Order: sequence, then C-alpha cells, then structure tokens
Amino acid sequence: MAADKQYRVVGTRPIRHDGVDKVTGEARYGADIHLPGMLHGKVLRSPHAHARILRIDTSKAEAHPDVKAVITGVDLPQVADKVQDLGEMVVNLKDESNRILATGKVLYEGHPVAALAAADPHTAEEALKLIDVEYEPLQPVLDVRKAMEPDAPILNPNQRTSGIGAGDGKPSNLARHFRHERGDIERGFAEADAVIEREFITSMIHQGYIELQNGTAHITPDGRLTIWCSSQGAFSIRDQVANICNIPLSMIKVVPMEIGGGFGGKTGVYLEPLAALLAKKSRKPVKMTMTRAEVLTATGPTSGSYIKCKIGAKKDGTLTAAHVELYYEAGAFPGSPVGAASGTCLAPFKLDNVRIDGYDIVVNKPKTGAYRAPGATNAAFATEGVVSELADQIGMDPIEFRQKNAVQQGDRRADGPLFSKIGHVETLEATAESPHWNEPLEPSSDPAKKRGRGVASGFWFNGAGAATASISVFADGTVSLIEGSADIGGHRASCAMIAAEVLCLNAEDVKPQVGDTDSIGYTSVTGGSSATHKTGWATHEAALKVKAEVVNRAAKMLEVDPDEIEYHDDATLSAASKPDAKLTFAQVAARANSTGGPIVGEAGLSTGGAGNAFGTTIVDVEVDVETGKVDILRCTTVQDVGKAIHPSYVEGQMQGGAVQGIGWALSEEYVYSGEGRLLNASLLDYRMPTTLDAPLIETIMVEVANPAHPYGVRGVGEVPIVPPVAAIAEAIYNATGVRMYQAPMNPAYVLSRIQGKA
Amino acid sequence: MAADKQYRVVGTRPIRHDGVDKVTGEARYGADIHLPGMLHGKVLRSPHAHARILRIDTSKAEAHPDVKAVITGVDLPQVADKVQDLGEMVVNLKDESNRILATGKVLYEGHPVAALAAADPHTAEEALKLIDVEYEPLQPVLDVRKAMEPDAPILNPNQRTSGIGAGDGKPSNLARHFRHERGDIERGFAEADAVIEREFITSMIHQGYIELQNGTAHITPDGRLTIWCSSQGAFSIRDQVANICNIPLSMIKVVPMEIGGGFGGKTGVYLEPLAALLAKKSRKPVKMTMTRAEVLTATGPTSGSYIKCKIGAKKDGTLTAAHVELYYEAGAFPGSPVGAASGTCLAPFKLDNVRIDGYDIVVNKPKTGAYRAPGATNAAFATEGVVSELADQIGMDPIEFRQKNAVQQGDRRADGPLFSKIGHVETLEATAESPHWNEPLEPSSDPAKKRGRGVASGFWFNGAGAATASISVFADGTVSLIEGSADIGGHRASCAMIAAEVLCLNAEDVKPQVGDTDSIGYTSVTGGSSATHKTGWATHEAALKVKAEVVNRAAKMLEVDPDEIEYHDDATLSAASKPDAKLTFAQVAARANSTGGPIVGEAGLSTGGAGNAFGTTIVDVEVDVETGKVDILRCTTVQDVGKAIHPSYVEGQMQGGAVQGIGWALSEEYVYSGEGRLLNASLLDYRMPTTLDAPLIETIMVEVANPAHPYGVRGVGEVPIVPPVAAIAEAIYNATGVRMYQAPMNPAYVLSRIQGKA
Repeated sequence: MAADKQYRVVGTRPIRHDGVDKVTGEARYGADIHLPGMLHGKVLRSPHAHARILRIDTSKAEAHPDVKAVITGVDLPQVADKVQDLGEMVVNLKDESNRILATGKVLYEGHPVAALAAADPHTAEEALKLIDVEYEPLQPVLDVRKAMEPDAPILNPNQRTSGIGAGDGKPSNLARHFRHERGDIERGFAEADAVIEREFITSMIHQGYIELQNGTAHITPDGRLTIWCSSQGAFSIRDQVANICNIPLSMIKVVPMEIGGGFGGKTGVYLEPLAALLAKKSRKPVKMTMTRAEVLTATGPTSGSYIKCKIGAKKDGTLTAAHVELYYEAGAFPGSPVGAASGTCLAPFKLDNVRIDGYDIVVNKPKTGAYRAPGATNAAFATEGVVSELADQIGMDPIEFRQKNAVQQGDRRADGPLFSKIGHVETLEATAESPHWNEPLEPSSDPAKKRGRGVASGFWFNGAGAATASISVFADGTVSLIEGSADIGGHRASCAMIAAEVLCLNAEDVKPQVGDTDSIGYTSVTGGSSATHKTGWATHEAALKVKAEVVNRAAKMLEVDPDEIEYHDDATLSAASKPDAKLTFAQVAARANSTGGPIVGEAGLSTGGAGNAFGTTIVDVEVDVETGKVDILRCTTVQDVGKAIHPSYVEGQMQGGAVQGIGWALSEEYVYSGEGRLLNASLLDYRMPTTLDAPLIETIMVEVANPAHPYGVRGVGEVPIVPPVAAIAEAIYNATGVRMYQAPMNPAYVLSRIQGKA
Repeated sequence: MAADKQYRVVGTRPIRHDGVDKVTGEARYGADIHLPGMLHGKVLRSPHAHARILRIDTSKAEAHPDVKAVITGVDLPQVADKVQDLGEMVVNLKDESNRILATGKVLYEGHPVAALAAADPHTAEEALKLIDVEYEPLQPVLDVRKAMEPDAPILNPNQRTSGIGAGDGKPSNLARHFRHERGDIERGFAEADAVIEREFITSMIHQGYIELQNGTAHITPDGRLTIWCSSQGAFSIRDQVANICNIPLSMIKVVPMEIGGGFGGKTGVYLEPLAALLAKKSRKPVKMTMTRAEVLTATGPTSGSYIKCKIGAKKDGTLTAAHVELYYEAGAFPGSPVGAASGTCLAPFKLDNVRIDGYDIVVNKPKTGAYRAPGATNAAFATEGVVSELADQIGMDPIEFRQKNAVQQGDRRADGPLFSKIGHVETLEATAESPHWNEPLEPSSDPAKKRGRGVASGFWFNGAGAATASISVFADGTVSLIEGSADIGGHRASCAMIAAEVLCLNAEDVKPQVGDTDSIGYTSVTGGSSATHKTGWATHEAALKVKAEVVNRAAKMLEVDPDEIEYHDDATLSAASKPDAKLTFAQVAARANSTGGPIVGEAGLSTGGAGNAFGTTIVDVEVDVETGKVDILRCTTVQDVGKAIHPSYVEGQMQGGAVQGIGWALSEEYVYSGEGRLLNASLLDYRMPTTLDAPLIETIMVEVANPAHPYGVRGVGEVPIVPPVAAIAEAIYNATGVRMYQAPMNPAYVLSRIQGKA
C-alpha cells in the first residue's frame, strides 16, 4: 500500500528541527515573553451562567496605584450585529465582541465582564475584587432540548431561527435548523428488513491542550500593535483582533510563539483583544495568561449533543435509508460544529435515501470552539453505533457490513457532494487483514471482567487554504525556509523535508521557521488538517523556483544553456556538453552573489483538493461488571493517510486522535450544576486519559495518494478521533451485551446500563 | 537639474516609517536586549601598545562563584594564516582571530586578551581584575614613517611586504606597496609652468557614532547561535562570526537591532565572537556592551596618514602631471583604506601623467576600520590643497580651475578606469552659480578675526552588492516589505517609497522591516553608500512581481486576459473591454486568497553600476589670529546625488558628511603618548563638533541620474565628507595667508602656522 512514487526524503523519519528546542526548554512559548515595563492583565469573569449586568463600577480598581488600566464592554468598539464574510471565515462581529467582553448580559459562567492591567499578576488578580458588578441573575438553560422548549429562557432576545423554521418572528435559542435530503427515506425504510432508531447524548468536552491561553500586546505611539500569543494561526488572530478592536490589519503584527497544543481550541481569540485594549489604554505592554480553570470555564470546548439516528438495512446488509437529527450545543453564541457533523455522520456509507437535520442551539455554556474533526465524533458515535447494531441484528460481520456499504470514488456523499479518490475501501480491507482483527481476544481469568472487541469507521473532510513559503539559499549550501503555518503537529519538519526533496538536499539542510504576519505572506489557520497539505505545497512551489534559479546559475557558471543542465539526485548539476564539469548545489550557492545575486524563491497559493480522510479503529476493552470501569486493552487505528511525508508524525496524529477519543468515550465531560456552574474546572476533576488509561496505540497507515496534491498528501490529524467513541461503545456491548447511548461511558453510566437502570 | 522622470512618490518627503519609534524610545537597540538567564560579558584589554604575552592565569576568575565562563586566545578555533576570498570580502582569518582575542602578542592598547561572563556587568568588570596577565612590554611604533625605518620594532615577524618591494624576505611593517601609473610624470612635470609639492599629515580619527558597540549571543544545545547586535550588515556579521568561531554560517542567525550610527565603523565584529564563545562555554545567553573608552581605544577608527603630493599645471590651468604618495596607518593588522585613497585622490581631474603610490603600514594602534568614504578625505586634503595652491599661483579662480580639468563621461580616472555618466561638471557649475559662492564674504569688525572662503571637490566610487527584498500584500490593500539592509541612513523609507511608486500606493501604505539573516535572502553590508541603490533596486524588482500578479488577479476577477489590464496611477485597474468595471488595488488584495492565494513578490540581485559621486564644498571661516581658533561661518555642500528618492535624507547625508568633515578638519584626533597610550579616550577630550561648532549646512542637490539604476540612484552618503577638510584649509589660507598641511587644524596648529612656527 505504498504511495505511487519513491522519494529520497519524503517518507523518511528525520529528527524534527524543533526537537532539541522542545526537549531542552529552549523553545519560546507565550509565557516566556518579558518586555520592559510590561504589565500583567487579568479578567473579571461572570459567576453567573445567565444574568443581566445592571452596573459595573470600576472606580475603586482605577484608583489603585498599581492598576494602570481597566476596561469593560464599553471600551470595545461598536460593531455591526450581522454575519460578515471576512474572506476566510464567517462571523457575527457583535457576537464576537460580546464574547470577548460582555455588554448587557452575561451568558455563561466565566464570561468576561472586565479586565485590568497592573504592575504584577498578583496585584492584578487582587484588584479584580475592587471592580463592583451588580447582576440580575436569570434562569440558565443548559440542555439543547430544554433550550428549544417554548418557555425556555432566551439567551439573546434578538436572535431568530434561520434556515428551516425561520420567519416565525419569535426570539429563539435555536439559531439555525438546516436539512440535507436525498432520495426518499420513507420508501427506503419501507424497503428495509431491519430498522433501528436510537438516541445518543454526549457531553461538552474540552480539547485539553497543555499550554494555557496567553497573549501579550504592545502598541507603539503611532498605533502599531504587536501581539505574541499561542495560536493555530497568527494571521487569523491578527484578523480577529483587527475586527474586534477596529484596527487596520496591517497595523497589527502577530508573532507566533511555539504552541503547546491546540486541537482546534486555539483558532479563536480570547485574551489578545483584551491585552491590546489594555496596552492601548495603559501605553505599556500587557501580558495575560489564563489559569486552567479559566481555560476550562471560558474557552471554546466542543459541543455536547443530542442525536437521534434511524437507519434501515436489508438482510444482505445493504443500507436502504438513514435519518439523523443532530442537536448541537453552540454555547452562548451561535456556531456549533453541527454543519460538519451533518457532512461526516453518514459519509462512510453509500446511501440513496437520506435525511440529515442539523440544529444549532445556544445554551448558557461557553461558546464552543473547534475540536479535532469538530462535531464528527459525536455524530459517528450515533451513526456507527446504529450501523453496528444493524450488522449485529442481521448477523453480519461489522467490517464486512461496512465494506458492503463503503463509499468510493464517484459515489455521492450522504449530504450530497461526489467523492474524488478516497481510501475508505482500502482502509477497511487493511482493518480486516490487520493482526489485531485476526488475533482472538482471550477472555479474562477474572469472571467479573468481561472483554469485547469493537470496530468503527469515521470520516473527515480535511481542509485546504491559503499558504505562503519562502526559501533563501545560504552560501554553505543549506537553505532557510520561512512559512506561515503555526506548527502544532510537526508540519515544520514535513515542509523542510519537501524543500529537501525538491532540492535533493537532506532534511537537516533546511532550516525551517514560522514567520510572523509581517514577515511572510498570508497563511490560513492550521486547522482542517491542512497545514502539511497547503504549506507543504507552497514550500514545494517555492523550492521549484529555487531549483530553477540554481539551474540558471549553474548554466552561467558552466557557460551553457540552462536547458542543458541536469539536476541530479545527489544535488549535483552537470551539462551534457561538459561531462567533466560537475557542480554541487553548495558550489552554486557559494557563488550566488557573483552569478546574479541571492537565490530566493517564494510562493503563495490557495490550495484545493485537500483529500478526504477515512479511518477505522479496532479496540479491545475489559469491563469490570462490578464497578462499570472500562479499561482499553488494545487499540489499532487504521487510516488512509494519503502520502505520509514524515510517518512518525502521522502515526503521532493517529495515536493522539485515538487517545483523545478514548478520553471522550470513557471519562471526559463538563459537569454543570443546575445553576450552570462548572463543577469540575480543573484537570484533577476533568478526567483526561493519562498513560495509565491508554495502551500504546497501534497504527496502520494506508497510503492512497491524494491525486490533487504534488505528494499525495491528505490531512491526517482529525479523522483518528472520529471512530473511537463508537468503537469503544461497540466493544463494551460485545463484552457485556449492553449497548451504550451516552458519552462518557464512565463507570456510573456503564454500571447503570449493566444493571438495567439507564 | 531635475532627474529625467516624474514620479508620484519618489522625490517626495514622507515621514520615515521608523520615525515615531525613534523619537519615542520605542526603537529597540542592542542595549535593550534582555533574555532569561542572561549573563554579562566584559573584555580584559591590554594596557600596552606592544607587548609579548608571557602568561595568562584565569584560575582566580574561574573560581569566582558568579563568573560563569572565561575565555582567552586559546579558546578561539585555529584558523589559517592566509588571505581568503570569502566571496564578499578578503580577509586574513588569522589576523581577524588575533584582533578579536590576542595570542602571543598584544599590538595596541585595548587589544583584547581575555573575556569573561558573569551574572551582572559589575561583577564581570570587577572579575577582570582576577585575571593575571604577565606581559613583556616591547617598543611600540606609532608613526607610518618610523614604522618603515629599518630598525623599527616589528609588529608581526611573519609579515613580509607584498606588491612592490616584495620578496626581500625581511619582516616588515610595510604590508603592501602598490602603484597606479599612467603616462610619463617626468615629461608631465617638465611641461608644467608651475609645480607644487607638499606634505600632509592627518591624525587617526574615529567615526564617533553615538551608540556603543554591543552584542548578545545565545546558543542552543544543538548549536544554533543567535546574535543580536548593532551592525551595518547582519549577514556580514554572521559570516565573520562563522569564520572566526568556525561555525557553519547557516547555524547562525543574526538579528539586526536598530543602529545608533555606524559610518563604516560597524561593519566589523568586535564583541560578537566573544559573546558567542562565552555563551557556548557558559550555556547561557551573554550580553556585551562597550564603554566609550573601549570604543575609542579598541574599535576601528580611520587611518592617520602621511601624504606627499606633487602636481604640475600650465599657465592656462591645464594639469600636466601628478605624483601622490599615500602612507596610511593600517593599525595593528594590515588593511588601511589606502587603496580607496589611491582611486579617489585625483579622480576629479583629467590627467594623462600620473603616479600614485600606496603604502599600507602596520603601527601599534587599533586596526583601522571603514569611515565614510574611507581614505578619501585624507587624500583629498592633500590633492585638493595642492590644486588650490596651484590655482592661486597661476592666478585662476579655484572653481574655474577645477572646471577646466574636470572629468566627465568617457574620461579615464587617474588610476585607470573609464568614467561612465557622472555629474562632476554639473556640480561645479552649480557651485559656481550658488548663492553662497556669489555672495561676498563680509570682513569681521574685529581686526583679530580674519575671514576667508574656500572650495574643494571630492570623489567617491559608491559601491553595489547583493540585496534581497520581499513584499507581501495585506488584505487591506497595504503591503509589507522585508529587506536585508541594516538601516543606518533612512533607506528603509526610500525602499518603501520605491515599492509604493511601483504599486501606485502611498509611502505610508508600505510597512518596511529589516529582516534577520534567516528571514530574508542575503544582503551585503550597508556600506559604500549602496543600500538605497541595491536594496531599492531589489525592492523595485519585488514590487514589479507583485504588480504583475495583481494584474493577473484583476484579470481573473474581471474575466479578461491579463494583457488587457491597465494598472493606473491611482492604484486602480481596468480592462478596455469592460469600461464600467474598475478594481482598486485594495479590492484585488482583499480577494487574493480566493483568486489564487497570497500575493507575494521576492527578488534577490547583485547590482552593478553603483554610480560615482562628486561633491564640492564651499566654506567660510573666521580665524581668530590671536588664538588660532577657527569658526565655520557658512558651509554649502553641492553634490551630484543621482536621483534623490527621499530628498530630506539625502540632504541629511550631505549635512552629516560636512559636519564630520568639519570635525576632522578642526578638532578630532587620536592623541597618543610615546608609549602608545591613547590620552583622549572620552568624548570630553576627543573633540567631535557640537551644534555650536557648525552652522546649518546648506545643500544643493544636483540630480544627474545614474543610467545604470532604475531610478537613477547614486550613493549619497560618503562623498560629502571628502572635500570639507581641504575646503576649510583653503578658507583658512584665504583668511590668514598661511597654508595648512596638517589635520586637525586646531588652534595650536593654526596659531603656530600663523606665527610661522610650523
């Protein structure tokens, strides 16, 4: 299953260029920023999930001698209450502004109501107590179904439902209802020999990145703003700050620091606009860093959801119809990933009769953000769960059942679009042939511990986007590479490898660097598993320009026509007419200044054809039927990775996605009180998996090259989180005989199901 | 005298982009660097001008608890004792290494013998006293003529004379003797009606930049070195450190900080290699900053010189022959600017019979560095002085005399090369027509104060070199410009203006930035008045690429062929076939990502055709014949500036050069004791001119466009320092009737001349 072409560097496993920095503490993160005269900012947050702000009195805080600036919602520029297409993203600026700093109402516990900057962080934190806020508490609504009830408390009285159901004129927490429909599901269900309909519930959960959100801002007297922060895309941060603070984007420079995890959660701004406004007001640099409690309470976790799923199949396993209803928590402002959920939930299956309803619903929780394949895991839990139940019911092997219905090139995705070259069939085949699937699962010697194996598949679109890369040749025959993608998954190494591949150098001969927003052309956010795809491509194009120029220079040095120059795999160049005169890349590099000047190549492009990804997870569990505790015994992730530029980092993505899926399946959840207070806002109580909770994840890379990319790259970072929850539910069923309809499947839930109570 | 073409932006005077930063203290200089865990380094310097190092004991310093690293000459890598062509410069690496840290011998007071890093600068300074150095003092030699005597103390016993006189096999302080010879000077002098031969002496003097040398180094565990420093070229610093420290250049990143003056004196490394070695040894960042005494004692001032000049002329003013002998102090290691002196000294004059002898002589003073038109001012003092004396003797107006002999396009320069398009004739004409020249100089009412007017011309080659510029288009219709030249004279603004000119934007729409050595392609040092020439040109090419791409995108948006697109002066684009559809640059910029990707343009080039510069200075002085004190009453600098991109900064260069020439003429000098100790190593005692010493310098820009540059740019920074010393000498003569043959013409010397004692 190798990709089409053999490469010199691509597909090897060099040590990542930033590796030594990362393990020795050299790497500079946002928390390492120290500027002369720098102040420290802190945020006053709402203790209420839903309340009217009656009055904010900042006078005592302002009078504090060490407090240099205080801001509230009135300090934010007025922006329009309408959805704007900013080219790269669609946002309602008013919502964004209110999210950053509340005006009028607070909509979730942790919603910022004021911020201040003081000489040191402790003074800043203490001074928050001097800000007097009078609230009128309101009834919160925390559940999507309750939020849609006619008498539900309304978060935003100006909000009307868009899409289906629009136009009744009434304020609603249902921001949008949309539908994808193909064929005739009634007829489809009628043709089915078996129809199963189930309801699934998942909790809001957090990405759980290690590095806390941070942002430092400095503004010069002529208004040039510099921001240092941890983000998945410096350009996106720049553009968001520009919009929220009403500053021309070209007056803002965002310097990307190293990032300690993002998983989608570091695409939006939180502290950056506040730091900018405080810096402007205080005329000093202002640094802000969240605590873990702030991260959990007030950044953007992924949606909790309620999903109804009904699927029908014939006895031979052919799926006849599916209806999925996806009710997703948006948090305090519209914008859940229900759209992505609708596109992914049935994507693995050939289906002629489909209806998918999506509901984007505001509740009194933090505004959701992106989390690795946003929305897809919840949805796959439902659809894959029902499919497994169907396979079971008609007595068919779950992989065979999936193979029978598997989409391939030319098929139509459930929600409409046609698939181009994809590797779902190949992935399922690799799963069926895998050691894991073919090795029997031995029962436990302990009768209280039941073992089971589960399997599930998943789909993710993968994104593309704009990217820029610039390469300069050093006189010693190595090259510098500047690119614009925040490096959250090791794509810096992959891009360096691509540059090395084109120029026939070694990976170590390329010195890669992520540039700031003034130093490299626009590059869209590291999201949608797009970074290696788009920035690798831009690097490829930049390297081709360098290669062409190196050929020109060699021609000049050898006094031949450039067309005559051959560029060999060992980075030597020769001309047929002068067989004895061979030049090395380094020799051409050393002479660059005297043969025409520095050799540079730069490319900006907007890629399409990101290459859809399919993955399948096999998991073995052991369930303690006396306590409900589930242990993961073995887990294998099989994935069509297109072409793996650096296989170790592809495997790392597959393993990381699986482990996060395990956390989602078994332990992670937002536990709210009835008043909407988060009860587990610490990593002690919010239970992410540790090394004790997960085995070494086995990986099987299936390389179905993406024909729309010069190296066949597909995004690889997101799809591995999609199947695990469903696969684990299936494994628990196979161990215990009871099906799971809720995540997390924590001991209490599993035990209650086993005992027939849930 | 306008340049050939009318421009929208070029030739206007916008506020410089770095202006607000500079006046508000926002600009970051090397002294502003603070890194976590940073140590401070200090240098132990030789108290002797010439001595053998018998022993260095660093054990006590190393035992100090707060001293983290100590280095001496043995810590420098061994390098070859031979001249190497490094592509961009020719150096003897062994000399460079010995200059940075002495081994075996010290060759001037201030020569570094050891360096250490400690927790704070005061501890570091105190700890230097713990280093025990045993010297055997040797007789120093401080004067070029004494240094050439047979029994002179020899600085380097391995040094033999190269060029003329090479091969006698004896150690010599004369490093090189070369000769330019054309025609037959004996016949030429025989044809002359007047022949004058004079001797001139000038003192070693310093560039006098305000910002002290500094350098901070940090090295990661995998050996990547970052240096922050004040320099005239980050790439040159990188390459020098690479050579001296034997580190691959691609492992070094030099970050250019803002620079507080250089004038040639910040092209060489001093502290950077020491900081790098201390950082490597201590595994901590190390910051080093010089004191003013260190700067004066131990950086690279310009050569003192002894010059013999003999010129003959006919009664009609025609010059018939010239013989110039230039004896230049190299300082402790070979490499005075005598080569440049030989090329400039007779350049303004058409001469068929010429002999120019150049002598590069080592003496026990700091190794000389470049200083604004290196070597040319000393030489012009001599040649222009003799020419003025000749004009006086045959009774001819000094400007008319120069006009009669003035070189123009196609003439051969005294030392050989042919002139291309130059503006010497035009400059002399502008001088003759100037208000200053045509307004009579009123005598003083004080009989002790005699007034006189002088005039002199000067020549400077101007350099070219390699440069890179990169432009990215922001979505708001402005652009970012990254370039590689250290900005010492405001060329950042000029390059931004060139980008704006090409793209039909305003200067403020371009955000210029000087990149570090990893972030932009190679750019040679800001010297030879080359920065606006080469980097402006690279910017022009980069902007043309951006413009072409903007046209492509507009064509895509308007759905027409790119050939049809017209790019208008107001930054709008239209197509003839769609007269109603007009696009702005900003509209195209906003759509870049959806029409093909980020719009970027990068260009690296090596420029030739730098464009020679001629200037003429008129000066009025008042001499107090009782004290010898000379006051400058009025000074006008007339110069062929090619095309002035930003006239204010061209005028600033002209004024700055004139003022530095005034300091050179009247007050600046290195005063050494017989033992070679510098007696005036402070700015109180080393007398640079203040605002009280110079009037507002009047400027007359003559724009004879350089046909070898897209905008007609010539270098403008250096030539204005060439004529003032000679012009002031001539003015003093016209005031007092006595001729000056020594610089500085301080009160003691002037009075002694008036009183017939010198």
